[in-house]
Amino acid sequence: MAEKNQFGEKNVNEKKNKNKQSKFARYSRIPQKRNQQEPQRQQKPQRTQRHKQKQQPKKVEKKPVRIAFLGGLNEVGKNMTLYEYGESMMLVDCGLAFPDSDLPGVDLVLPDFSYVEKNIDKVKGIVVTHGHEDHIGGLAYLLKSVNIPIYSTKLTIGLIQGKLKEHNLLSSAKLNVVKPGDRIKLGEFEVELIHVNHSIPDAVALAVRCDGGTVVQMGDFKIDTTPIDGDPIDLARLAQIGSEGVMCLMSDSTNAERPGYTESESKVGESFDRLFRSAGNRRIIVATFASNIHRVQQIINSAASLGRKVALSGRSLENVVAVAKELGYIDVPDGLIVSLDTLKRYPEDKMVIITTGSQGEPMSALSRMAFSDHRKVEVGPLDYIIISATPIPGNEKTVGKVVNELMKLGAEVIYEKMYDVHVSGHACQEELKMIMSLVKPQYFIPVHGEQKHLQKHRILAESMGIDRKNIIIADNGILVEMTDGGIRVAGSVPAGKVYVDGSGVGDVGNIVLRDRKHLSQDGIIIITASVEADTGYIVSGPEIITRGFVYVKESEELIEQAKRIAYDTLDERLGRNPSDLVAAKTRVRDDISRFVFDKTKRSPMIVPIIMEV
Amino acid sequence: MAEKNQFGEKNVNEKKNKNKQSKFARYSRIPQKRNQQEPQRQQKPQRTQRHKQKQQPKKVEKKPVRIAFLGGLNEVGKNMTLYEYGESMMLVDCGLAFPDSDLPGVDLVLPDFSYVEKNIDKVKGIVVTHGHEDHIGGLAYLLKSVNIPIYSTKLTIGLIQGKLKEHNLLSSAKLNVVKPGDRIKLGEFEVELIHVNHSIPDAVALAVRCDGGTVVQMGDFKIDTTPIDGDPIDLARLAQIGSEGVMCLMSDSTNAERPGYTESESKVGESFDRLFRSAGNRRIIVATFASNIHRVQQIINSAASLGRKVALSGRSLENVVAVAKELGYIDVPDGLIVSLDTLKRYPEDKMVIITTGSQGEPMSALSRMAFSDHRKVEVGPLDYIIISATPIPGNEKTVGKVVNELMKLGAEVIYEKMYDVHVSGHACQEELKMIMSLVKPQYFIPVHGEQKHLQKHRILAESMGIDRKNIIIADNGILVEMTDGGIRVAGSVPAGKVYVDGSGVGDVGNIVLRDRKHLSQDGIIIITASVEADTGYIVSGPEIITRGFVYVKESEELIEQAKRIAYDTLDERLGRNPSDLVAAKTRVRDDISRFVFDKTKRSPMIVPIIMEV
Repeated sequence: MAEKNQFGEKNVNEKKNKNKQSKFARYSRIPQKRNQQEPQRQQKPQRTQRHKQKQQPKKVEKKPVRIAFLGGLNEVGKNMTLYEYGESMMLVDCGLAFPDSDLPGVDLVLPDFSYVEKNIDKVKGIVVTHGHEDHIGGLAYLLKSVNIPIYSTKLTIGLIQGKLKEHNLLSSAKLNVVKPGDRIKLGEFEVELIHVNHSIPDAVALAVRCDGGTVVQMGDFKIDTTPIDGDPIDLARLAQIGSEGVMCLMSDSTNAERPGYTESESKVGESFDRLFRSAGNRRIIVATFASNIHRVQQIINSAASLGRKVALSGRSLENVVAVAKELGYIDVPDGLIVSLDTLKRYPEDKMVIITTGSQGEPMSALSRMAFSDHRKVEVGPLDYIIISATPIPGNEKTVGKVVNELMKLGAEVIYEKMYDVHVSGHACQEELKMIMSLVKPQYFIPVHGEQKHLQKHRILAESMGIDRKNIIIADNGILVEMTDGGIRVAGSVPAGKVYVDGSGVGDVGNIVLRDRKHLSQDGIIIITASVEADTGYIVSGPEIITRGFVYVKESEELIEQAKRIAYDTLDERLGRNPSDLVAAKTRVRDDISRFVFDKTKRSPMIVPIIMEV
Repeated sequence: MAEKNQFGEKNVNEKKNKNKQSKFARYSRIPQKRNQQEPQRQQKPQRTQRHKQKQQPKKVEKKPVRIAFLGGLNEVGKNMTLYEYGESMMLVDCGLAFPDSDLPGVDLVLPDFSYVEKNIDKVKGIVVTHGHEDHIGGLAYLLKSVNIPIYSTKLTIGLIQGKLKEHNLLSSAKLNVVKPGDRIKLGEFEVELIHVNHSIPDAVALAVRCDGGTVVQMGDFKIDTTPIDGDPIDLARLAQIGSEGVMCLMSDSTNAERPGYTESESKVGESFDRLFRSAGNRRIIVATFASNIHRVQQIINSAASLGRKVALSGRSLENVVAVAKELGYIDVPDGLIVSLDTLKRYPEDKMVIITTGSQGEPMSALSRMAFSDHRKVEVGPLDYIIISATPIPGNEKTVGKVVNELMKLGAEVIYEKMYDVHVSGHACQEELKMIMSLVKPQYFIPVHGEQKHLQKHRILAESMGIDRKNIIIADNGILVEMTDGGIRVAGSVPAGKVYVDGSGVGDVGNIVLRDRKHLSQDGIIIITASVEADTGYIVSGPEIITRGFVYVKESEELIEQAKRIAYDTLDERLGRNPSDLVAAKTRVRDDISRFVFDKTKRSPMIVPIIMEV
């Protein structure tokens, strides 16, 4: 991590000094609680107020503010937003998504970068709100084609460095460390960072200002009045920005379905203290998200208080903890963390293992422990296991499987909500409403969620008095345009899904995936034959090879019958017209397909290969 | 449904008369609340009490009671239990399971019937507790090989008839309608049916008696004091049986993780009344489980009270409602149910549609409505949709997708727990404990659930004072043996999973599934060539065909390179040894595999086909 000095802090300080009390502060619309330091604030230039514009010292011709959603809407993942004002563009976040089960073989899903690449001359920079994969995971792929300067907080940049290193992009990347309160000048934009709470430290919301108005983008956040780092979300600054006038708010819809407030992260620490004591003389294993550094801190605290050592299992966890330690985001007593290799030196009641795999991911450390496939940790009746996470929708079954297997090994497993071993990192309804009440936006766009989350968030906004016509339920690929006069969908931009499979990016598309799904359902039947080019005489075959279709030994008769049908069809077609191989192949495919379906009610993929010799 | 008369009710009545206060009542063990009508009850013959046996009028030599689990443990689905006493065997339930996503292409999963088939001479009958697929869905497959008499309640038999009809087994099947209170004589067993509440009417628990002792098998149940049919679970009879002495209790673990009580089905009706009113002038669509006849009844009641007609969408729903109407399990005012074809004749505010698809099943009616693919129902802003179900673990994501799509169409969707539009059909912790306190078993086996459910249920049993050594956490294929002296795992029986794929039963096994998974991950590369038999000279090809691997047009160069490698390898190997095709093929596979992985980091299935001409 010697790259710290290249984060461009000098650069950032310049910006800070230059932009204190910037010109953008003038464009507030809502005439309440006037800020004494800013006597020249402008009213919202509605028709009735037009005369007031004459009070201004300088007339700025306002252009529409445009926002294009490249990802993160109607999905949870690959967040990426593009801002456009005049000839300037800037980006917020560049995440990835993990594939659903309907994308077999796909490793990662990226946003479509083509709109960014096409407009690269206008793009001034990318600001990153926090270090989760769904906000930083696409950066390495983006930077392969366009080297856009990146701005974020210290920990986030530290985590991005790790990603870029893997892709050999670290030396060329333009990384800039900024901090809450800083303002970043990006062409006609100026971006202010505002500290928020989330399930990873150093998360920020953004106030994106331009002559067209101010947009507040909350990023991922919650309101935690007792966070582990002692630094609650900067509601005061959000309120101040709100009173200066905000054209549009974009806010985190993840928990818009949940009433009330999200509990404080501190609550989990209390649970750990209580549960760790009830573990007695057993070994404690806690599974959590690698990036939840405050959670890891609390596990370390509880372990230390009981005189237990801590070992880490899982590569991502080791990486994140190393970065967090290096940058001062985690406080570990000397000698507390020991290597997993030295596990045998400590009795069970002196050990806590922190592990990845809280979502039941098949290759994760916890999953390998559960299926007795972990090289260093063997789970048994002397283990007390806490799953400090809630299954992300879709993972319930895999998490359940891991719990079942751990229990079969005799371990006690704490995984239920009632034990308070997890709190969400996202704001619930009351917090979302509080943000709206502070930011007081003219327009509202719910982001970061599926349709049901966006719609619930819309309903909340309406309940706060925001008119339906001032709310946009957008979608990936939607270009929204706003002026003081209104907000509307103004067009679309390319924003599909780009699949990463192995080292290939974008070379697996819908046809390939459709074939994979077809193959997985009923397998494949390959029919091969060699025919004499001139006569159409069958000189070899037909042979039939199947994969994933049926247990071959028990279906010899079926295969033999299929061979005869293929032979008869080929013989008949090519006897009539030796040159028309294509028609003969089509006929073989149809005949075999019908025969197989009649016999088995299955529709395997059928591939006839006729070779001319 | 003209087969009503073949249910064998006469047969059953015979049994009833013959067995009133049967000899089995003597074998109670726990000496409390002596039943005045049964003065000759026997104490638990522990060593210290052995002298008391002399009080008995007749000495019966007790054999061990054996129970083999053919399904339903460490899974939710395919429930099937075999009882063995002396030379008699009997079965309880014969269900199916729906495949996980790790069983691609598999339609259904059945229990392994081989142990039943092997012992068919001893098997006297099968008693079915209720009409859910996971308890009756395997019967049609079982009856194809062994025609065992089936005993169950009227509705359950009605639903079984539907299944058997589809498989052309109705005329040969031996179906017997019995009712709660009846006793069925099956060899050395006598089975008493006890009314319970569940999410389908006519569910029963069983008291299975033999000279070895009494086993109470609860089936699926909840305690509902205000059920829709006005008939709460027969706790009095369970208490009576408990006081007569129960050797072993097997109880439903589905909700063993949930504290408290399951709410009454009546609660849902209140919610329907409230929500239907708030639908205003919109059309109401309610999705629920087809078999939940009481739920359907409540929807009908609420619809009728508002003067709305009801239409049914989904074949399984139509079937179940038809059977339920025919047998008197549902009360529908004349003319209330109208055909979906006549939908256009009624304004939105006069219509309720009941539909299947509450689990987001891709081909279900609700899913087709959501994706605008339903031939008769078009969803839009004038629809008010209630999902009257909770996602079964694993279905959260598919249900979420359907909700998202319905919302995109402009419909309001009520799907959250807080609206009380669903209650579970399974007992929660307090109910489970109540059953234990009434039945007072010597031994306890938690059934119907995954490991985590079984373990939670075990913990509950221990909290009720049942000694750990008297509790067995069993598994499919486990044979448990119990005598007055103790309970133990005595051996194992075949109890694997049999996959149904299309019309094939058991012809898809692990190799085929492994291939399907491999194919779905990275697709397949087929390399074909024709060679001269004597010389090994390549007369045609190699050609390369891929499916599900990569988008072919963008990878022409990769394919060309692979062809060259295949040619060079074949040429070199066959030039040296023309007859060793097998070695040449292996070498081609290895070389292409390595090349493709180097280039793409993918491992498609590679199938070389070399034909001799």
